Amino acid sequence: MLDQSLTERLRRIVGERHFRDDQEARVAHSYDGTPMLQSLPDGVIYPENTAQVSEIMRALSEYRVPVVSRGSGSNLSGGTVPLQGGVVMVMHRMNRILEVDAENLTATVQPGLITAEFITHVEAMGLFYPPDPSSMRISTIGGNIAECSGGLRGLKYGTTKDYVIGLEAVLPGGDVIRTGGKLMKDVAGYDLTKLLVGSEGTLAIITEATLKLIPPPAAKKTMLAMFKDIYAAARTVSRIIEAKIIPATLEFMDNPTIRVVDDFAKLGLPRDMEAILLIEQDGSPETVERDIERIRSICELEKADRVEVAETREHADKLLTARRSAFTALARLRPTTILEDATVPRSRIADMVLRINEIARKHGVTIATFGHAGDGNLHPTATTDARDKEEVHRVELAFEEIFEAAIELGGTITGEHGVGMVKAPFLEWKVGRAGIDVMKGIKAAFDPHNLLNPGKLFAKETRRRVVIERG
Amino acid sequence: MLDQSLTERLRRIVGERHFRDDQEARVAHSYDGTPMLQSLPDGVIYPENTAQVSEIMRALSEYRVPVVSRGSGSNLSGGTVPLQGGVVMVMHRMNRILEVDAENLTATVQPGLITAEFITHVEAMGLFYPPDPSSMRISTIGGNIAECSGGLRGLKYGTTKDYVIGLEAVLPGGDVIRTGGKLMKDVAGYDLTKLLVGSEGTLAIITEATLKLIPPPAAKKTMLAMFKDIYAAARTVSRIIEAKIIPATLEFMDNPTIRVVDDFAKLGLPRDMEAILLIEQDGSPETVERDIERIRSICELEKADRVEVAETREHADKLLTARRSAFTALARLRPTTILEDATVPRSRIADMVLRINEIARKHGVTIATFGHAGDGNLHPTATTDARDKEEVHRVELAFEEIFEAAIELGGTITGEHGVGMVKAPFLEWKVGRAGIDVMKGIKAAFDPHNLLNPGKLFAKETRRRVVIERG
Repeated sequence: MLDQSLTERLRRIVGERHFRDDQEARVAHSYDGTPMLQSLPDGVIYPENTAQVSEIMRALSEYRVPVVSRGSGSNLSGGTVPLQGGVVMVMHRMNRILEVDAENLTATVQPGLITAEFITHVEAMGLFYPPDPSSMRISTIGGNIAECSGGLRGLKYGTTKDYVIGLEAVLPGGDVIRTGGKLMKDVAGYDLTKLLVGSEGTLAIITEATLKLIPPPAAKKTMLAMFKDIYAAARTVSRIIEAKIIPATLEFMDNPTIRVVDDFAKLGLPRDMEAILLIEQDGSPETVERDIERIRSICELEKADRVEVAETREHADKLLTARRSAFTALARLRPTTILEDATVPRSRIADMVLRINEIARKHGVTIATFGHAGDGNLHPTATTDARDKEEVHRVELAFEEIFEAAIELGGTITGEHGVGMVKAPFLEWKVGRAGIDVMKGIKAAFDPHNLLNPGKLFAKETRRRVVIERG
Repeated sequence: MLDQSLTERLRRIVGERHFRDDQEARVAHSYDGTPMLQSLPDGVIYPENTAQVSEIMRALSEYRVPVVSRGSGSNLSGGTVPLQGGVVMVMHRMNRILEVDAENLTATVQPGLITAEFITHVEAMGLFYPPDPSSMRISTIGGNIAECSGGLRGLKYGTTKDYVIGLEAVLPGGDVIRTGGKLMKDVAGYDLTKLLVGSEGTLAIITEATLKLIPPPAAKKTMLAMFKDIYAAARTVSRIIEAKIIPATLEFMDNPTIRVVDDFAKLGLPRDMEAILLIEQDGSPETVERDIERIRSICELEKADRVEVAETREHADKLLTARRSAFTALARLRPTTILEDATVPRSRIADMVLRINEIARKHGVTIATFGHAGDGNLHPTATTDARDKEEVHRVELAFEEIFEAAIELGGTITGEHGVGMVKAPFLEWKVGRAGIDVMKGIKAAFDPHNLLNPGKLFAKETRRRVVIERG
């Protein structure tokens, strides 16, 4: 429960309608895209501008009330669940495109802007913003920045981090900082811009972002390569990169994913294939032609069963939609879907897929795997039922072993979804005790009273590493 | 003076030959590439591996002795001058390429490796590492990482930051951390990799780096565009970017620079031009042809006096050498050369050049300007004489106004040379009081006893902002 004098102050800052502590608003903001995780906030606030955010933070700081800032809550690691109650700050009213600067190829936007709306807007101006998380129709730019979202174009174009060049952010005490700018180069002090990207709302509240835009590619082609041997598909990924071709998109779906996607989207995918690679190249028309033909040869060398190059943009979009709908399609199978994003060096994709399948078999759980094969970022996805505690427990054990396997293969516990609450117990596996200590020090430097999204990133207890019984 | 028990311990760690406290070694490491700045260290140590670095740091921490890690000392902001004495740690013995991984397109190297040697090595393997600071023939990868070095290819390819994907580093107390990896995506906690890049040796000692490589462009073309009107040249830069062409290189030299470069390199440059743009495009042969022709048209529209496309690689190299020799050529004019790197949004290049010239005239000092116009990173360079205190004072006043102008135009005090000692009094102008406080908090989280490169980044006193009298 918030102190009444605080709620009155918050209402004065944003106006009566924009602070709510009724049950409906609280329940609606008690969860995010992560299954089996819920915690009620004490209130929900909707600021309209940076000055309000600053005043809100000043008030919450004085009262030592935690705050979780969020966009659409499509987070998959529990990053936007208000674990310790307090206030949820929803950024949806701050959703304007403040400027698109064609001379500097930058855009300045507010955090509540929907990613897909932004992409559509700049595309209509003949510009290109590459980060395209699968959630982009609902996710916000602010959420993408907080999580350092990736997407299907990450392999060639990088992730959100590579496009954020300036930020305005409010510190827990209410001070406003500005980092970077419309600058391709800036080494004035520590790089706070890149530090805030991916900081999961634990360091500051992002209130404005300057994003780098690039010229759009002139041409694009999309193809599918289908394999009866899953490891041949994974090897093909490595062969393409080794041949020094960096496709715009290089996605992987295993057989269980293919089947549910086809049930869902009715694409006539071949249901007997063990794996499909969805490959897209963009660039100048000549480069695209050349690369697609070279990729086709590599697929055939690796004994792809079928290679299909989309002849029209509509056909290409349909194939892309297949991949984009993988999560939604899998989510229809059973009541609970747990999607993870263990990531490995791209040369280890085949090993990782093998390990995931072994681990799933060992624990008797269903895990379908798809993801961004080109950058080693896989999404092993378990379909289960939250009501079956025993099965859910086995799924959890399986994911622990999957994280362990990713680390063993030189990878990481999360490539684009963030640590949040769900992966906090595993963070030390990746960054070590000294790494955790440094990160905690950074957290304390920004947020000495631990008010911003408390309970995330750092777990009370690190999970003991499991011993993987192979074979 | 170091405690004798400490010097004995240091000698035991690295071996007799690799710790020196004789006058010769101390003087040789008392300065870097920055003019008019010198401070003697108490000792110089040359570690061979990470374990030694860790032991050294443990010892120095116990004795509370400051340490400045460095490569070749080509720093231009006093970043590697041991202001508070202590030990200079020279990384030259740790200069191996540990691995080039063609499957993952990564290289793992030690910090003391010379940049140009690394570039040559990977190019011989058909791979490409874009960051190419002008000092690359002597600079080290570790130094490039510490400063986040840019270079001539920054416009299209980004800077060092964009290629560092994993680090091993030793914390002040001797603990070793590992960040990132051979991973194109990793969001496990705060991005310590990007935080350490550009941290100027103030947070940790970098002992190993994993770098991203990319496929080399298939073709490349180089051209010069010469202008009688300096602002037409600056406008041309904006027009090229607005036309959605991102050249690999887009460099600017003003008339004073043209003249000294021509004296130095005997290239037959037209000495009556007010500005030259050096433009390079790379990519597929078709794209290069197309872009170079489009750029030629833009230059002609903006009334370039002459446009010259290099017909051979030798000719192109000669033109590039012209630009690369600008600093060396200017340095021959008078005893002291002060090179700065104020940076503005690229649309403000013309305004910035105008302001630099006004400011130089006002203070009666000689400033030649060249630099990476495409990314707004200019190098106004004063030629002066350190023995003439009064003139040097006027140069300093001029640079203060140049920094002020850069900030006013939405820019920054440093694009690629770092803050070091020289620009520390101006850092607050860019990042604000709250930004400084956050950065100091980060520093304290890594280095509570302020032993790593003390006296850098943070000045005892911020310079008061000067009022610029215009016109």
